[in-house]
Amino acid sequence: MPALPTVLDVARVAGVSRQTVSNVLNAPGLVKAETQERVRSAILALGYQPHASARRLRTRRASTLGVRLDETRDGISGALLDRFLHSFTKEADARGLRVLLYVSTDPEDEIAHIRRLNDGADADAFVLTSTEHGDARVAWMTENRVPFVTFGRPWGAEDLHTHPWVDVDGRAGTAAATQHFLDRGIRRIGFLGWPSPSGTGDDRRGGWEDALRGAALDPQPGLVTVAPDDVGAAESAVAAWRERGAEFDALVCASDSLALGAALALSRDRSGPSIPIVGFDNTPVSRALGFSSVEQRTDLVAEAVLELLDGRRAAEDGAPPPHRLIVPELVLRGDV
Amino acid sequence: MPALPTVLDVARVAGVSRQTVSNVLNAPGLVKAETQERVRSAILALGYQPHASARRLRTRRASTLGVRLDETRDGISGALLDRFLHSFTKEADARGLRVLLYVSTDPEDEIAHIRRLNDGADADAFVLTSTEHGDARVAWMTENRVPFVTFGRPWGAEDLHTHPWVDVDGRAGTAAATQHFLDRGIRRIGFLGWPSPSGTGDDRRGGWEDALRGAALDPQPGLVTVAPDDVGAAESAVAAWRERGAEFDALVCASDSLALGAALALSRDRSGPSIPIVGFDNTPVSRALGFSSVEQRTDLVAEAVLELLDGRRAAEDGAPPPHRLIVPELVLRGDV
Repeated sequence: MPALPTVLDVARVAGVSRQTVSNVLNAPGLVKAETQERVRSAILALGYQPHASARRLRTRRASTLGVRLDETRDGISGALLDRFLHSFTKEADARGLRVLLYVSTDPEDEIAHIRRLNDGADADAFVLTSTEHGDARVAWMTENRVPFVTFGRPWGAEDLHTHPWVDVDGRAGTAAATQHFLDRGIRRIGFLGWPSPSGTGDDRRGGWEDALRGAALDPQPGLVTVAPDDVGAAESAVAAWRERGAEFDALVCASDSLALGAALALSRDRSGPSIPIVGFDNTPVSRALGFSSVEQRTDLVAEAVLELLDGRRAAEDGAPPPHRLIVPELVLRGDV
Repeated sequence: MPALPTVLDVARVAGVSRQTVSNVLNAPGLVKAETQERVRSAILALGYQPHASARRLRTRRASTLGVRLDETRDGISGALLDRFLHSFTKEADARGLRVLLYVSTDPEDEIAHIRRLNDGADADAFVLTSTEHGDARVAWMTENRVPFVTFGRPWGAEDLHTHPWVDVDGRAGTAAATQHFLDRGIRRIGFLGWPSPSGTGDDRRGGWEDALRGAALDPQPGLVTVAPDDVGAAESAVAAWRERGAEFDALVCASDSLALGAALALSRDRSGPSIPIVGFDNTPVSRALGFSSVEQRTDLVAEAVLELLDGRRAAEDGAPPPHRLIVPELVLRGDV
């Protein structure tokens, strides 16, 4: 039986230093993609087996990122976090990083999970999703110096620099949708949102207001109605709104669930011309039914999260934690 | 600084043997749920830190299960594997197991990923999804004795015992849907499926045929139409089918995408009474629009996969690999 290949063999075949091979295995963020690929090809060609557990024990760096998998949320836009997970796993894999899933029942339970994974060196950094005002997880991670980035801004916090975060600029999304109608000469543009207060919902309504004010139009309360994020509730709300005499020639919605409800209500009401609708989240439903929608670009979110995680590990103490606000994309369909 | 708690401290507090603590950490499948919980509470209370990497190195048992995360599939029923992942992560967590994600571009790339994860002891067993006829992964895993279970049966194989697998009995699902209509006295029951050949699609059509034959009815070709799994295509197909004079009083569909297309086509056609529809996959769309659908019970699939993985590790060589066919559930809604 021939001797097992060593890290030096890999370095020789790839034409790099031993340290570079080690970096590819333990801190791939430090190595250019082409070099990483050359080293990985050499590893595969030689059948070199870096023992992950031994490596981890030595470095306490698992190169593994922990992410909570939420309960499947009902509703049509409920799959956003799943879409993020797909993007994130793909981007992490491209950087030689792994994604470890865990579940939890509440913030305390999540902290217990994170603590165990971190203490055991099973995961060396975390992505927290579904952030909320005064998030207990954020406080604990910060205090215990566990590297993390949140997907979701610190809603309600005075200070946006308490921790590194990435979020999607929903306000810019609904502003772009509204602006699109304005550019087509439509002046009466309605908004279908969620009951206030809602960090995300109020933000999306704000984008509609911004765009109208930018065109010197008044975002009158009569142009707005709200419903919980449910197709049937949205359908009833829009039907009742029309019966009360609401008039609009286009409708911007805070979600695809709301948009589908609106589409069902408006398709029953065949007295006038058809009214174009824009939803939010660019779900399979908006694609299937052919209405426009705002795409959150989870691919860009995933890239930004990984950049911040990488920077976080390298950053000097004392630098303010960075954040990124991703601009969503208006996906137009049909006659809108 | 007090001495760090040891495994003996945990055993004493939990009132179990040292071996039981070790089993909870390394082979939780062997320990009753209540005992596991007692040991875990003691571990948390004492702040005992079993070093995961050290443990792994010793046992080469990561208690970590590798699962490929597929590209997000378009279409309304495309989220089934995401739903399985949620169920699987939850069930794995309840057993003290972890789920590690990876992505791959094709079967060869997936084998390379599995090889690396297995060689490095990063994952000690795998779940393969989206199985196909003559699956290269199955052959490689079997030859290399890497523990695995597939979610998906060996379509087209003569021998159902080549490897352990779990699948959902789609045929039983469409049969139950058809039977439901028969029980209500409906005789003319149509089927909207996918173009043949399709392992899954032909199986679902088979269930509709079974139920009709069981009621001494002829599953005539005129009662069937097909479309690709796309709402618009299904809508056109059903509209054209009706124009050709197709008559049915209820419709069983191979997916919720098809069912939504059918619902749209039939809602335009207001000459007759409304026709009840059953879809497949119990997606948020079927819930939102209120039509019945067949639920695949990914929770039962996840449990069965974990049981087979556990049994697989314990099984004697030579025993035929087991499989489980999960019976789906007909979820009734509206006036059906």
